Order: sequence, then structure tokens, then C-alpha cells
Amino acid sequence: MEFTSEQRLDDGVLEREFTLGEIPGVLWTPGSAPGPSPAPAPLILIGHNGGLHKRESRLVARARHSAAKYGYAVAAVDAPGHGERPRSAADEQVRADLRRAKEAGEPIEEILDALIVPLVERAVPEWQATLDALLSLPEIGGPVGYSGMTAIGIRLAVVEPRISAAGFFAGGFVPRALREEARQVTIPLLFLLQWDDEGNDRQLALDLFDAFGSKEKTLHANLGGHAGTPWFEVDDGNRFFDRHLK
Amino acid sequence: MEFTSEQRLDDGVLEREFTLGEIPGVLWTPGSAPGPSPAPAPLILIGHNGGLHKRESRLVARARHSAAKYGYAVAAVDAPGHGERPRSAADEQVRADLRRAKEAGEPIEEILDALIVPLVERAVPEWQATLDALLSLPEIGGPVGYSGMTAIGIRLAVVEPRISAAGFFAGGFVPRALREEARQVTIPLLFLLQWDDEGNDRQLALDLFDAFGSKEKTLHANLGGHAGTPWFEVDDGNRFFDRHLK
Repeated sequence: MEFTSEQRLDDGVLEREFTLGEIPGVLWTPGSAPGPSPAPAPLILIGHNGGLHKRESRLVARARHSAAKYGYAVAAVDAPGHGERPRSAADEQVRADLRRAKEAGEPIEEILDALIVPLVERAVPEWQATLDALLSLPEIGGPVGYSGMTAIGIRLAVVEPRISAAGFFAGGFVPRALREEARQVTIPLLFLLQWDDEGNDRQLALDLFDAFGSKEKTLHANLGGHAGTPWFEVDDGNRFFDRHLK
Repeated sequence: MEFTSEQRLDDGVLEREFTLGEIPGVLWTPGSAPGPSPAPAPLILIGHNGGLHKRESRLVARARHSAAKYGYAVAAVDAPGHGERPRSAADEQVRADLRRAKEAGEPIEEILDALIVPLVERAVPEWQATLDALLSLPEIGGPVGYSGMTAIGIRLAVVEPRISAAGFFAGGFVPRALREEARQVTIPLLFLLQWDDEGNDRQLALDLFDAFGSKEKTLHANLGGHAGTPWFEVDDGNRFFDRHLK
């Protein structure tokens, strides 16, 4: 893991960009008072679907808030084919198929499967390698939470025992295979649903909440569309992690 | 309003029993530091379906927590025919009908309507009279929230403009007429659902959440049965009121 930039933000948070092989990411760690080294911080992985982190202003705001107010180390990476990472010819082909099907009003579930299943297959080992590297830093101590995209999060929660709790955002396509895998998820969950999300089926999301194998799981649903999650859910999410990671 | 007992609890909260006409109730107000009089406290009405308050240990624990940790004045009353209040012959008859229908495995919706609709008709004006009396106390300043049983809460939110926000517990029967009235509720809502509530239909509860006319409404659903609401929802409820009453 190589740090490529570093700046101290006005809320005291240290923001560092890094690369790990071909994976670009950002790490936010809490500011600390002068004096003896603080205890290692628990870690939250923010698993956004894509987009270049610096333009994802809500993601950055959430990450800084979790670091500054709740004392978490927070990391985000660009998933394969997302953010600043190149898309493969296969990626471009599936995206072209998706645009065509949408314009023609044709069913898109199979195309989304062809987009998301390979993404999950590639992204999860990358998260695990990133986790190895992050947990080797002295300022990060675990335990570890995951917050973000559901499809990647399901697989990560199933295969990665170091993830102790997860917050999933229901506003994204979850392939059938991953929905079935949800029964194997047993860690505490906070499942965040936008009640009027234009692009996502509410009943599928409720069925998915029902399917998770976790004994402790909470659904938070708010009125409004895909991008309308109220800011107070950021605090609720941090308090959820406080209950399970601290 | 006449106070009939008063004790200072070990969390500093002042617990007073009162009667207002035939309505028996309890008022919890926050302890205060010595010195100038504190600002009047905002008020939360706890609208439990029934049961004598002193035996409702969870209700009392919630009320004391809201007063001690969040600075609310909290009031509970026994609804007509509940707690220490006598049941009318009509009440007894409907309850006998309900037991018989349950034992015979017959539909109970009409009987529950006959139980709950008159309860709402009687309880709501009593809450309004109680509110008049409570708001005349110098230590209570409003704004006012309601937390508890949905059926009474819907009507109260519709007819009583002094109620600024409400937390409803979905684990109780809501007559069809009240479910239709839900569209007229426009105040911010927190709607609390136990996902596996034995006695209540989950889909009806989700439909009711959908029906509320409020622009700001949040659903919290947790795994488990009717009485299994996790304690962290008490804090979530207080923070919800903090956003709207303070």
C-alpha cells in the first residue's frame, strides 16, 4: 500500500489517497490531540458502487463525519471499472447492452446480472487485500464494519470473517444469486431503504431484508427517492457501528 | 389536575401521580441542577394501550430515560377501561366476544373494531384535556410529541395541532377507519415495527406506513416478536423527538 497524497482537513481528519496494486483508494483517519499515540481506530469500509471518490461529495462527507465525530478510520476504494479505473471491453459491451435494453423498454435483469455478478467476483478479493493492508497500519485496529452497496456487501459478509457488522443501502440491483446468498449473512445488519426509490423494487428490498440470516437486523426506511436519504441516517449508521464495533 | 403522590427517583427524575377528573396518570420531569429555574421542558405523551402504569416496567423505564437523559417531561395516563380504571359492561361484553371468537378460531376484525374505535373516541379528548392541564404547569413548555399506540395516535395527530411529531408502535390493531384517517396525518413520524409480531399482519403495517400523509416519515423494523423491540430504539425515538421538538 502506497500513500500518494496526504492532507489534514479542517475537522482534524487526515485524508490520504493510496494505491494498492491497481486499486486506488482514500483513507480518512480521525485527528488526535497532541500527546501519547491514541488507541488504534476501528475501521469502516465504504463500499460505494462506483464513481470517482473526489466527486462523490456525499460519500466524502459521510466518511469525514464518521472519522471526525465518531473516531473511525474510514476507507473507500474505486471498484473495478469504476471511478478512475479503466473499463474492460466486456464492461463496455454490457453497459452498451444495458442502454439499448432500457431504450427499447426490454427487461434488464439478465443484463444487470451480467454487470454486477462479475463486479462482485472482482471487488470482494480486492476489499480483502485492502483490508489486509489497512489492518497492518498501526493507527487502525479493527473491528471492521462495511457500509454501502448491498451486492458486494453480501458476498463480503459471507466470505470475510473480519467484517463484524454491516450497513447496506437497498437502492441498488442485487442479482438473484446474491439474494439467495443473503441467507448466509449472519452479522448484525442495518438495512437502509428509500421508500420511493425510482429504480428499485420495494418488495424485492423487503424480501431481501427478510432473507438475511442475521439474528440482529434493523430496517430503516425513509420517504423519498434514490438519492434522498436524510442526513440523520448517517448518524444512525455510526451509532449502529458504535454498538457493534466499539 | 391534582397531584396525589410525588417521589424523587435516583436518576434525579421527579415522578408524580396525578388525577384529572377520572383520568389517572403519571408525570415524569427531569431533575435539575440547583440554581435558577430551568427552561420549561418539551413534553412527550406516552400512549400505551392500557395496563396499570406501575406494572408496565418498560413504559416506566422509557419514560424515566427520556426525562433523565434527554430532558423531556413525560406523561402517561390510563386509557378508559385500562389500567386502574373500571371497565364498562359494554367493554366486558366485547372482551368476552373477543375471547370466544379467538377460541373458536373465528375472524376477530369486527370485534376488535368494536373494542378499539370507541376506545379512540373516548381516549383522544382525554389526552387533549390532559394536555391542557400539563401545558399549564410552569415546568412544561411544549412542543409536544406523542409516542405509543397507533390507533389513538392517528386520531390525536389529526385533531390536535399541538402534537408536533409522533412515534407509533405498529404492534397493535388499527381499525379500518383509522387506517384511512392515516392519510390526514402530516406531522413527522417514526413508525416502529416488530418484523415477526405474532399478532399483527406485517403487510398491513407496511401499507399503513405507506398511507401516512407525512412528508417526513421513517420506518424502523427489527427482527423479533411483539415484545422484542430492542432498547436502542428508545434512544432512536428520543433523538427523533430531539430533531422535531427542540
